[in-house]
Amino acid sequence: MVSKRIQKALLGNSAIRAMFVEGKAMAEKYGAENVYDFSLGNPATPAPAALNDAIRALLDESDAIEGGSLELHGYMENAGYSEVRQEIAENLNKRFGTGFDAHNIIMTVGAAGGLNIIFKTILDPGDEVIVFAPFFGEYRQYAANFDAELVTVQPNEADFQPDLTDFEAKITSKTKALIVNTPNNPTGVIYKPETMKKIAEILERKQQEYGTDIYLISDEPYRELVYDGNLEDFLTKYYKNTLVGYSFSKSLSLPGERIGYVVVPNEASDAEDLIRGIEISNRTLGFVNAPSLIQKAVARCLDEKTDVAFYDENRVMLYEGLTKLGFTCIKPEGAFYLWVKSPVVNEEDFVNEGKKYNILMVKGSAFGCPGYVRLAYCVSHETVKKSLAAFAKLAETYR
Amino acid sequence: MVSKRIQKALLGNSAIRAMFVEGKAMAEKYGAENVYDFSLGNPATPAPAALNDAIRALLDESDAIEGGSLELHGYMENAGYSEVRQEIAENLNKRFGTGFDAHNIIMTVGAAGGLNIIFKTILDPGDEVIVFAPFFGEYRQYAANFDAELVTVQPNEADFQPDLTDFEAKITSKTKALIVNTPNNPTGVIYKPETMKKIAEILERKQQEYGTDIYLISDEPYRELVYDGNLEDFLTKYYKNTLVGYSFSKSLSLPGERIGYVVVPNEASDAEDLIRGIEISNRTLGFVNAPSLIQKAVARCLDEKTDVAFYDENRVMLYEGLTKLGFTCIKPEGAFYLWVKSPVVNEEDFVNEGKKYNILMVKGSAFGCPGYVRLAYCVSHETVKKSLAAFAKLAETYR
Repeated sequence: MVSKRIQKALLGNSAIRAMFVEGKAMAEKYGAENVYDFSLGNPATPAPAALNDAIRALLDESDAIEGGSLELHGYMENAGYSEVRQEIAENLNKRFGTGFDAHNIIMTVGAAGGLNIIFKTILDPGDEVIVFAPFFGEYRQYAANFDAELVTVQPNEADFQPDLTDFEAKITSKTKALIVNTPNNPTGVIYKPETMKKIAEILERKQQEYGTDIYLISDEPYRELVYDGNLEDFLTKYYKNTLVGYSFSKSLSLPGERIGYVVVPNEASDAEDLIRGIEISNRTLGFVNAPSLIQKAVARCLDEKTDVAFYDENRVMLYEGLTKLGFTCIKPEGAFYLWVKSPVVNEEDFVNEGKKYNILMVKGSAFGCPGYVRLAYCVSHETVKKSLAAFAKLAETYR
Repeated sequence: MVSKRIQKALLGNSAIRAMFVEGKAMAEKYGAENVYDFSLGNPATPAPAALNDAIRALLDESDAIEGGSLELHGYMENAGYSEVRQEIAENLNKRFGTGFDAHNIIMTVGAAGGLNIIFKTILDPGDEVIVFAPFFGEYRQYAANFDAELVTVQPNEADFQPDLTDFEAKITSKTKALIVNTPNNPTGVIYKPETMKKIAEILERKQQEYGTDIYLISDEPYRELVYDGNLEDFLTKYYKNTLVGYSFSKSLSLPGERIGYVVVPNEASDAEDLIRGIEISNRTLGFVNAPSLIQKAVARCLDEKTDVAFYDENRVMLYEGLTKLGFTCIKPEGAFYLWVKSPVVNEEDFVNEGKKYNILMVKGSAFGCPGYVRLAYCVSHETVKKSLAAFAKLAETYR
């Protein structure tokens, strides 16, 4: 007998599972090259060569020392190797003018692990966590892990910058955190500095009003994936109660390795308790520590980046192609997603119509925002190019 | 403001933290070679050379293929690479006569990750999980993560095989699982086949009586660390509702890499729901999947084992040395721990007395069994040898 929550999840999970199975079945039936699978946010550009080289060097250096493998593959503090954390701190300081040292950085099992140990550290049952719709659907599970409520701010369909009026209205005395994800999954929008400043002002005001701490949690897997001359941003400068959850999954194309980090700035309320609490949560939730070898490898690749130009080419081709066909698209400024307005009210009908042309898209309601679909353009150029003819046929349906 | 649970943990955590800090301070003051730190269960034997060689080969093979890094460092199913799971299944079948295939194996972020995703899958708030004292203290946190109660069976001080009378008395209609850890941390005892058969009989009877499923969760990080001709055992053969949580941390000496697996046999009740539930829990708790490169590396090292003879030498030296000095010790049959009866009722006094001779031991109450201490003999031979003179002085105190 599985638990009641998992019984529910087994039912709810079937929609996405069905899509995955459907994609596989389509690929078998029509050939993978004739299926336009935009459903998965899975990197399409290889890791920089420097990554495998760093791993090789670490193995060689370790083998040259008696018992070296005990250090390379061994336990370290739950927060990670201190020299790795120091290097990350210095790299952030160099790039963003921050003032971190090793103790502000906790290495994590990806950003998903990072968000969960932050949540475990700050959330009591019944606490509220605010998100701006549309949002990465897993946030709902992460909040539920700690019996907290996810409170959704309605989407701003003009430009998908957050709706700040609704945001302010949704803050209560129970609000413990706001999650911000910019560049955004699923819209590709980057929140403007003015937006961030206004969010900070609202949070400051509401903290004062309620006498509470409200943490801004910045989920940053797409930090380095920015286009059109947009600058990489780092949110701790806007608001002192900012906690950062970073992942190397996209910037270094190693999502399977589960490596990221959390940043707790000194100026955050109760920073030392947060740091120790996050370390404890890392252990007690069962992560224990971020994987050891890959911690050391990414520390040697902090100035490396996967091929952003590759995604940019897809972005331009898909955005311009679909716009020309008459679809209403939000122009992506970062990440690798295109957010498209469904030509019919119920976007599930649009998703199903797309399947007839071997196009796989994800319904917006999976991101708390019906009426839209998400296209993940982390696919080959060839797939994007060939998909345009299929989209043309799909567009015909709605003429 | 951290959560109420973490506030409590910050207080409770300080004892072990203090010991860690104390050990470091001692090493600085007296020199590491003059401190006998038996406090940490951290492997002391290097990983087999085959491990680093396997990683090198995987990197080379991947680099030889266009886009190979996308597979090597990429996402796979949440349960892990299917070929890795198939190889593990076949290796278990070969060694233990089981009949698993890939779908019975879920790759996990170590055994700690494995236990947590099992717990998330089966436990509702208020459910009870039984453990035999003494036990690995983290089980308490893992159960608390899902609002379940840990129910402790009293220790059997005769030989530290479980007290089956008390066990049977502790089973209620709320009992969802029993955790078994053999070879045992902290006693080093291996549960005899007869013991396991009796446990299975009791569980079968109680399942019938209450009309419930009671899962036996076998936590097996020490499976391969057995001495004196004891055989490696695999518990699914005793009881059909057995779930296994395995870790490569000790067998391959790579505790920092966080790699292990869960086994769900077909004959377990609701096996398919369990498997899917554990996959979902792996994702939603934030693990997502076990680290990718190291999954493939351990699959190539399934018949490898770290240097068990090294630990055996320490085991014999420490057990015989302390016994000769008049200490009452449980003879370890596996793992790398020696369980010693405190010569005084309050074992914390004994632990403190030991510190005067630079000996670091862990109090039994940390394992739910006061009156004893644990010595982790995963240290150098030299440390064990030199410690005996210090133990001799400690013994004098209690003459």
